Amino acid sequence: MQQDSKYVIGVDLGGQTAKIGLVRSDGYIAGRRVIRTDNYGREALAFIKDLAFEIKDLLLNCGEPVIQGVGMGAPNGNYFTGCIENAPNIQWASDTSVPIAQLLSAELGGLSVTLTNDANAAAMGEMEYGAARGMKDFIVITLGTGLGSGIVCNGHLVYGHDGLAGELGHVCVKEGGRKCGCGKKGCLEAYASATGVAVTAAEMLRKSDEPSPLRQKAVITSKDVCEAAQEGDALSQRVFDYTGEILGKALANFVAFSSPEAIILFGGLTQAGELLRAPVVKAMEDNLMNIWKGKIKVLFSPLSGSDAAILGASALAWNND
Amino acid sequence: MQQDSKYVIGVDLGGQTAKIGLVRSDGYIAGRRVIRTDNYGREALAFIKDLAFEIKDLLLNCGEPVIQGVGMGAPNGNYFTGCIENAPNIQWASDTSVPIAQLLSAELGGLSVTLTNDANAAAMGEMEYGAARGMKDFIVITLGTGLGSGIVCNGHLVYGHDGLAGELGHVCVKEGGRKCGCGKKGCLEAYASATGVAVTAAEMLRKSDEPSPLRQKAVITSKDVCEAAQEGDALSQRVFDYTGEILGKALANFVAFSSPEAIILFGGLTQAGELLRAPVVKAMEDNLMNIWKGKIKVLFSPLSGSDAAILGASALAWNND
Repeated sequence: MQQDSKYVIGVDLGGQTAKIGLVRSDGYIAGRRVIRTDNYGREALAFIKDLAFEIKDLLLNCGEPVIQGVGMGAPNGNYFTGCIENAPNIQWASDTSVPIAQLLSAELGGLSVTLTNDANAAAMGEMEYGAARGMKDFIVITLGTGLGSGIVCNGHLVYGHDGLAGELGHVCVKEGGRKCGCGKKGCLEAYASATGVAVTAAEMLRKSDEPSPLRQKAVITSKDVCEAAQEGDALSQRVFDYTGEILGKALANFVAFSSPEAIILFGGLTQAGELLRAPVVKAMEDNLMNIWKGKIKVLFSPLSGSDAAILGASALAWNND
Repeated sequence: MQQDSKYVIGVDLGGQTAKIGLVRSDGYIAGRRVIRTDNYGREALAFIKDLAFEIKDLLLNCGEPVIQGVGMGAPNGNYFTGCIENAPNIQWASDTSVPIAQLLSAELGGLSVTLTNDANAAAMGEMEYGAARGMKDFIVITLGTGLGSGIVCNGHLVYGHDGLAGELGHVCVKEGGRKCGCGKKGCLEAYASATGVAVTAAEMLRKSDEPSPLRQKAVITSKDVCEAAQEGDALSQRVFDYTGEILGKALANFVAFSSPEAIILFGGLTQAGELLRAPVVKAMEDNLMNIWKGKIKVLFSPLSGSDAAILGASALAWNND
């Protein structure tokens, strides 16, 4: 045991990339790497070997500090088992259970590896460094390729009976609605995510002849929609109105569950700023019970890029000794 | 302080009645009283004085044991403030905050009075004496006049930031649906409750000429529907299919939030037995993510009548010394 080590590795593993950070005990990220997660087909082990290589190479380039462990946030990452379990957005884990903590540990010579849900990691980052400092009851919603959530009640992450709690992207918001990556229909994630925004934009473009700069794009991304909306494109703005309304109604239901002090929005979609937040807050307020109207804060994460997720994941490694 | 006292009072306060129990430390209910809650108009204090009178009279009739305190479960009962806050089903608290713990304590000569949500009290009763013994993650759904819920995560009741968490009766299940007592539309409680079952039956009777013994009733109650269904009335059975489907879909969403080991159904509607449970389980399973299919128990409370609520409420008083 290296009791004096002052560094850990935090890994934010998503549908497209894994972001690796070498994190000092004061939260300073001393080095970073990014590798893709989406070009390994069904070869989980090939990805894990590449991830281990990048971690070792990062350490080599940073003067080989002694590190205490690796904390990792990943979709459907199970804190209890160390496995990524049936994660719809990761092909090599989409219909199986990948014991990534154990396998990565083996590739790293037995170094301790702790896993949790990517959104739980973000929630830990917000609690320690971000918008939730001092809060005991809050929900973090990550709006990336998918929609994740980390729920904190009375100061503790909600893991549930099996470690898989907090799949708020997969509550049903439209009966018989859009097909979701998880196999169900009408999931919140199919609407309130980068993917959902792009689909909504494509639908709106198909349904009218209204002019929009989006019509010049061969493939529309949520970033395109965000930029067009910020430049005044009415159709793109309605995409965010629609997205925000669905998300806000869902948030009202979440409030009825755990009565949080705040809901913290995090991830790429939040770059839309008030274009997204305003319809979210309106729809949430319209659907809250009277006891909560005007009382629930809807905040954007103040942490830049994926720092919250890397820092949150790294906090797992600090806590694990 | 009476360190040797072996009794507490548990009060289960609902939309129609308040059930009072004198509870011994081993869970034996040594004496009971019931008073109405629905004939006081807006006079909260008149009700509280009558409640105090009944408690004192019950104690007098039971040989005046020394009691340690009063634990009370009530709709929108706030553990943090001791107030019943805007409880839609109680006229004298429907649009105000009634500091019932403080007022009842004053009427009882300063005796300690602790309040919580009625469904939280039921959850504590289930954890201590009922279907949730040994469980750390479960949800109790109370199906009475309204629909209440008590949520336990990692062995602790979820109170939320303000003490009001667990209002699962007021998640929206039908956009623009039935008007709910809370002022919103389409709440789960407007469908999955004794009131909701009666409304569904009336709607189904209006929409067809199908024969049903329910047509002979001037006013239809959920008990009538339950009895007719159990005697083979097809229309009444469809009322439970419809109710169970809506409830089961909602339960699937709740599982995505807290991933409980079990969901425990409690209250009058559970007398319908498998007529209710079968469609609930089917709809829940059809709407669960793959990771949870076949893994979430749906149980009926084994506790008779309102014992779970009285015992759960009484547990508050034991814990409060």
